[in-house]
Amino acid sequence: MEQDHYYMELALEEARLAYQEDEVPIGAVIVRNGEVLARDHNRKERDQNAMHHAEVMVIQEAVRKLGTWHLEDCDLYVTLEPCLMCTGALINSRIRRIIFAARDPKGGAILSSLLLSEVRNLNHHPEIAEGICKDESSRLLKDYFKEKRKNK
Amino acid sequence: MEQDHYYMELALEEARLAYQEDEVPIGAVIVRNGEVLARDHNRKERDQNAMHHAEVMVIQEAVRKLGTWHLEDCDLYVTLEPCLMCTGALINSRIRRIIFAARDPKGGAILSSLLLSEVRNLNHHPEIAEGICKDESSRLLKDYFKEKRKNK
Repeated sequence: MEQDHYYMELALEEARLAYQEDEVPIGAVIVRNGEVLARDHNRKERDQNAMHHAEVMVIQEAVRKLGTWHLEDCDLYVTLEPCLMCTGALINSRIRRIIFAARDPKGGAILSSLLLSEVRNLNHHPEIAEGICKDESSRLLKDYFKEKRKNK
Repeated sequence: MEQDHYYMELALEEARLAYQEDEVPIGAVIVRNGEVLARDHNRKERDQNAMHHAEVMVIQEAVRKLGTWHLEDCDLYVTLEPCLMCTGALINSRIRRIIFAARDPKGGAILSSLLLSEVRNLNHHPEIAEGICKDESSRLLKDYFKEKRKNK
């Protein structure tokens, strides 16, 4: 639990970097046996690629480092509930645990826009945890969108 | 409709290339204004990357070519119903139409393992079509898995 908090703080640091780069502030970290394998943030606008969410960036880095697509012994920390694409990517990669900070009532594909537990025939069921650092994550997102609206 | 058949045949050609490379035989094509922007196939094992499904490969190529993440005027042809990850990636990329050949009763995230129409708050709703060349696609997949079992 204390460790979960530590890794989520790293994910939040990544989210703040995204904010500075004028990207929706979401960060993610992949951890394996206590080692941070990958840390990155949302890069959708910079890369002009709607797949470059924080979770996808760290999956790409982790599989490159490990030389295998199997992430069975890896845990993912992310500051916002993953979307449909990212949840699917994490399941396809057999990630062990998904720990997210804040829920995403619109796009979240674990507990919000759909209940992942109700999807049939999933060939892998990651352990799910939520809520760690959720206020910090929500505040960052709120500040970002408020500033965006102001600058319009 | 005749055009849909033509593009699905290209996707099937890609699926056959995947078969030859000992990958689950699935192929995809992205078309924009009658031009084939991208064609590719499943490369999961070769790349040791569980995200390298056919659909993801062609999205990556299409956004690279166009220089934008917006695929609003693009259609995707794929030989098997997309999974959770790919369906999410296509929605995130705002693809206009998804045309798939065969249903995937296990992993398909449009009509099979979940009903995409029941997912709440999706910010984009691609047009969906299915069934074109479905027998050819199913046969290819069946042959592949039969051969796999035999060689075990």
